[in-house]
Amino acid sequence: MRGNSFGNFFVLTSFGESHGPALGAVIDGCPAGVPLTEEHINAALRRRRPGQSIITSTRLEEDIPEILSGVFEGRTLGTPIAVIVRNHDTRSEDYSPQVYRAGHADRVWQDKYVNRDHRGGGRSSGRETIARVIGGAVAEQLLPDSVQIVAFARQIGHVSLKETPGQITRANVDSYPTRCPDSMADAAITEELLRLREQGDSVGGIIELRIDGVPSGLGEPVFNKAKSLLTSGIMTIGAVAGVSLGEAFTECLLAGSAFHTAVANAPEGITTRSYGIQGGITSGQRIVMRVAIKPTSTTGDLARQGRHDPCIVPRVIPVIESMAALVLADLFLASRLDNL
Amino acid sequence: MRGNSFGNFFVLTSFGESHGPALGAVIDGCPAGVPLTEEHINAALRRRRPGQSIITSTRLEEDIPEILSGVFEGRTLGTPIAVIVRNHDTRSEDYSPQVYRAGHADRVWQDKYVNRDHRGGGRSSGRETIARVIGGAVAEQLLPDSVQIVAFARQIGHVSLKETPGQITRANVDSYPTRCPDSMADAAITEELLRLREQGDSVGGIIELRIDGVPSGLGEPVFNKAKSLLTSGIMTIGAVAGVSLGEAFTECLLAGSAFHTAVANAPEGITTRSYGIQGGITSGQRIVMRVAIKPTSTTGDLARQGRHDPCIVPRVIPVIESMAALVLADLFLASRLDNL
Amino acid sequence: MRGNSFGNFFVLTSFGESHGPALGAVIDGCPAGVPLTEEHINAALRRRRPGQSIITSTRLEEDIPEILSGVFEGRTLGTPIAVIVRNHDTRSEDYSPQVYRAGHADRVWQDKYVNRDHRGGGRSSGRETIARVIGGAVAEQLLPDSVQIVAFARQIGHVSLKETPGQITRANVDSYPTRCPDSMADAAITEELLRLREQGDSVGGIIELRIDGVPSGLGEPVFNKAKSLLTSGIMTIGAVAGVSLGEAFTECLLAGSAFHTAVANAPEGITTRSYGIQGGITSGQRIVMRVAIKPTSTTGDLARQGRHDPCIVPRVIPVIESMAALVLADLFLASRLDNL
Amino acid sequence: MRGNSFGNFFVLTSFGESHGPALGAVIDGCPAGVPLTEEHINAALRRRRPGQSIITSTRLEEDIPEILSGVFEGRTLGTPIAVIVRNHDTRSEDYSPQVYRAGHADRVWQDKYVNRDHRGGGRSSGRETIARVIGGAVAEQLLPDSVQIVAFARQIGHVSLKETPGQITRANVDSYPTRCPDSMADAAITEELLRLREQGDSVGGIIELRIDGVPSGLGEPVFNKAKSLLTSGIMTIGAVAGVSLGEAFTECLLAGSAFHTAVANAPEGITTRSYGIQGGITSGQRIVMRVAIKPTSTTGDLARQGRHDPCIVPRVIPVIESMAALVLADLFLASRLDNL
Repeated sequence: MRGNSFGNFFVLTSFGESHGPALGAVIDGCPAGVPLTEEHINAALRRRRPGQSIITSTRLEEDIPEILSGVFEGRTLGTPIAVIVRNHDTRSEDYSPQVYRAGHADRVWQDKYVNRDHRGGGRSSGRETIARVIGGAVAEQLLPDSVQIVAFARQIGHVSLKETPGQITRANVDSYPTRCPDSMADAAITEELLRLREQGDSVGGIIELRIDGVPSGLGEPVFNKAKSLLTSGIMTIGAVAGVSLGEAFTECLLAGSAFHTAVANAPEGITTRSYGIQGGITSGQRIVMRVAIKPTSTTGDLARQGRHDPCIVPRVIPVIESMAALVLADLFLASRLDNL
Repeated sequence: MRGNSFGNFFVLTSFGESHGPALGAVIDGCPAGVPLTEEHINAALRRRRPGQSIITSTRLEEDIPEILSGVFEGRTLGTPIAVIVRNHDTRSEDYSPQVYRAGHADRVWQDKYVNRDHRGGGRSSGRETIARVIGGAVAEQLLPDSVQIVAFARQIGHVSLKETPGQITRANVDSYPTRCPDSMADAAITEELLRLREQGDSVGGIIELRIDGVPSGLGEPVFNKAKSLLTSGIMTIGAVAGVSLGEAFTECLLAGSAFHTAVANAPEGITTRSYGIQGGITSGQRIVMRVAIKPTSTTGDLARQGRHDPCIVPRVIPVIESMAALVLADLFLASRLDNL
Repeated sequence: MRGNSFGNFFVLTSFGESHGPALGAVIDGCPAGVPLTEEHINAALRRRRPGQSIITSTRLEEDIPEILSGVFEGRTLGTPIAVIVRNHDTRSEDYSPQVYRAGHADRVWQDKYVNRDHRGGGRSSGRETIARVIGGAVAEQLLPDSVQIVAFARQIGHVSLKETPGQITRANVDSYPTRCPDSMADAAITEELLRLREQGDSVGGIIELRIDGVPSGLGEPVFNKAKSLLTSGIMTIGAVAGVSLGEAFTECLLAGSAFHTAVANAPEGITTRSYGIQGGITSGQRIVMRVAIKPTSTTGDLARQGRHDPCIVPRVIPVIESMAALVLADLFLASRLDNL
Repeated sequence: MRGNSFGNFFVLTSFGESHGPALGAVIDGCPAGVPLTEEHINAALRRRRPGQSIITSTRLEEDIPEILSGVFEGRTLGTPIAVIVRNHDTRSEDYSPQVYRAGHADRVWQDKYVNRDHRGGGRSSGRETIARVIGGAVAEQLLPDSVQIVAFARQIGHVSLKETPGQITRANVDSYPTRCPDSMADAAITEELLRLREQGDSVGGIIELRIDGVPSGLGEPVFNKAKSLLTSGIMTIGAVAGVSLGEAFTECLLAGSAFHTAVANAPEGITTRSYGIQGGITSGQRIVMRVAIKPTSTTGDLARQGRHDPCIVPRVIPVIESMAALVLADLFLASRLDNL
């Protein structure tokens, strides 16, 4: 296996199995002098933790980060930042090496590597996203304060968000258990999820990601386009099955004259449905992406016992934000090398 | 700028501006002994070339590849394979440094790099995809013969494909100018495109990518998932605005019990809507992806003159296939390192 | 800072400051199925540990490795192998932020990163080599059993080794505190080091590295030559000031006809003073390298107190062996990609 | 094969076989705005070209560079800079696939890759260094004007340089055919080389590399130390068999109190025999390295015919300078990422 590192300049290396001693992350490439404490990381991890409401898994995972290196007197040293989180709730008796769960990597993994940690998905467990949230927390400390990264549930099952002004802030989104920031939609989704759990079923949804305050000029014109790195980062999350700029799958059927409308007050050539990324490079406008999230693959009895979320959308949201922060931190550093 | 290389093991480096002396590619990491001649590359380049029908741009670009290194007596040496294509039709008078074209990178590029080759988009021109097609042609020579990569126009504007058995082969798709492999749909799209050109307008569409015969076990469980690398590769193409496994943006709203249906005769745990990729690893089933393509950004007088395709979908298809081939070649080599 | 990872296929990432909570290593790219336990790593760490004889530093560093991930039931999973070692003897009162020690990185580090962990050298402490020894221990488990990597003290100060047959095995070398595997030389060196410590002085030396049983065909002809990767790896060690194939600095003054002598019974074209590496590629013959080690930079009162070794040669030996093992493991994996 | 790229930020990719259509280089990562023309590269290539004196090979290689991309109106665009040089004197009848030349990679290459371009060494020919000289020429344009990189022949066979003040400038070194910048030494070496050619023999030597005016703070403390990257770069050259800081193989036998002498007027802690690199980081002092060069491996009749230099030292000098420039350009860019 390879591919446990992400990024070119701000590099996250993720390690750990869900039922091994610990999971963790090493961030190499973070400049010296960035303010960072365990509380920054702790706050980020709390946002991804289940057990927060009646619609989330009953497994208790209290994830306490420990910074092992890279920070001195409250600021980064420029050296690798290693952070670990110990595993606690490791009821491995739930898992059998003989059972290949539907929609999981169990079977292909067994064939590929032969030696497999079958307990809870091992390395392909959702717990691996802890490393990404750690990395994202560090990345957000590096990014300029202007950058605001917020994801939210745009649709879960049949219920979609009616947007009203001022709704989409991280604090407001987090105040709803479904992370669909509207009281009526949140209630309707909660009801549906409780019903699905009773039936031992699940559902997916669509997340919207908005990024404001991004400096213009991030991204490179060919393989490291801002759009491809963001998409790539988000697509590394297990539950994600599709990513688009705006609502590309419907908007791309528009006539070009309607699609490429000039943005008022923006620099010449910037168009609305470029969604903040033109020719791969950020324009300073808002970035908007949509992300399709698969229904939870655990159905039937295990689902009825409530040990898995009937919908993973609320928990994936901070992971998507983390991947976006990692990509932007990477491009932010890269842009220092643009000119003589 | 960085990011002109793609791949971890089978590495394509792309270079060249649209109006400079030449474009080209260097492939490093191709094993020795792979059969390869200029004709393999020429055949691939012919498939991306415009000027093939009444609906494509009138610009004549005869792209003759020259292999400079890496091949000896009809087989690869294991050394870097360098291929160049000279630029010919370089009517730079069409372009002015003072004009920032809508929907193009002109303006953000100018701000980012200051020194900009404004002629025809320079490095951010669609001509850069020549390098990807060269790389894809080499990658296909490396991949096992079983691997069949075919993309086709699923929908352009309002016209979508009615699928019938046996339709989706590369030869059949190529026999339609629109690459929508159905006589009635092809005719309807052609009519619409001619009308749009007259109006100085354009349209986008949706491409479907199907890959059959992929060995199981390609892809890594975390950042190098087969789905994320394929998506990442496809999203590096300028015209692409969205990528999904199957039709994820609608399918993800299904109940989990409907979404995760077991595949008959497949290994235990393999489900239909994993579309050949389970937990990031190929399962040996067919891979299916959808790709949203923006309308051509050139509208108005320049579009009426026919110097740009009113719809880029037919020309993007071989580029998407090339990116898929590059990703699969990369993962194919990576899988040699799985076990002791 | 970057550059805390080493290797292209078998990748070691090192982290940790000498007086922070822990040091550690993540190895990504080790195939699945390699036998590995904490005892393998522990055995390697014991070989680098000071406090083993009267001539080594009096600081007690009991370095207990903990494997956090990547191993299941005694074999590697193919996932990242994370190993940490807690720091204990952290008498930071020995160190002052105002003092820039001669021959250390203190001053340049302060200027470069501004935020500096001054305690014991922080990241630039010799303790960082723990990560390399961990990585080397894993690499040796991956390499074929035939590969024998042994380094030894060829000369310390004025005393040099008189070689006799059968002397150069790792077990025999380790049985001498100076790692100069000859009773008389070992005694003479010990005497000199005790004298130097009394005087608050130090000395350097020359290490020889021999590698037997390397498969032929490892290494790539251009930038990843076996000789350049081995040299590069060894030169990343703080105390190293020079590396050569054999005794190149004297042998290169020979006539070509004397230098390039054919090796009896070896494949045609293999010559004696290529020392097992021909055109960058291993030939299957013994690899021989010489490494120049600087005198310990701590002199004067601190040296008299015995808190630093008067000669670092014995302690550097296992680190050199580890770097060699890492390079060979990397090239061993790379060679799987040579042919179709 | 892999390993045809060098550098982390300023990345040179080298391609081409000695008897194929062309050799070349792609430089990715050079910022926009650097002044660059073909004449800069041409001047550098002229310095490595043989046929300059009676002691060099009689093969005429007129190497004319063509810039294919990355430069616009005399300045770099920030895009990849591709440069090719056509091969002309390709007398492949000199070479037979059945003969494995002593001291060359012929045999190990044949075994490793099976498909081998036997003509003139193919990829492992000294002609590959053209790519490095191209890369070095671009790197020198990027580096601050203060940086002066000069290598010269310190010793060839039995004749060594008596140094006098002001001698070591690139222009002065180049004015001697042997690149040993002293009239008497140059004459003595020339005489010896003519004698060796008559005898069909060859000899090696020692090159000294001096770099002045390097900004302090370049290099990273662990694997990307300035000393290890410089050494690694130089060791990738075929003829090099050893590299040291200063004369490390003799100086390391000094007492520490003599070795680590403080440098007058330098920042506290900087010592003489650190030769401009302290803890892996440049201190702003002069960098001094020694490089051992093997005798030319072609001896006997082919040597008598004068088709190979009896001593490769003069021709390797610009290649060593180029590798040093590449490393410094890389570290120069890296240092932009040190701090918040």
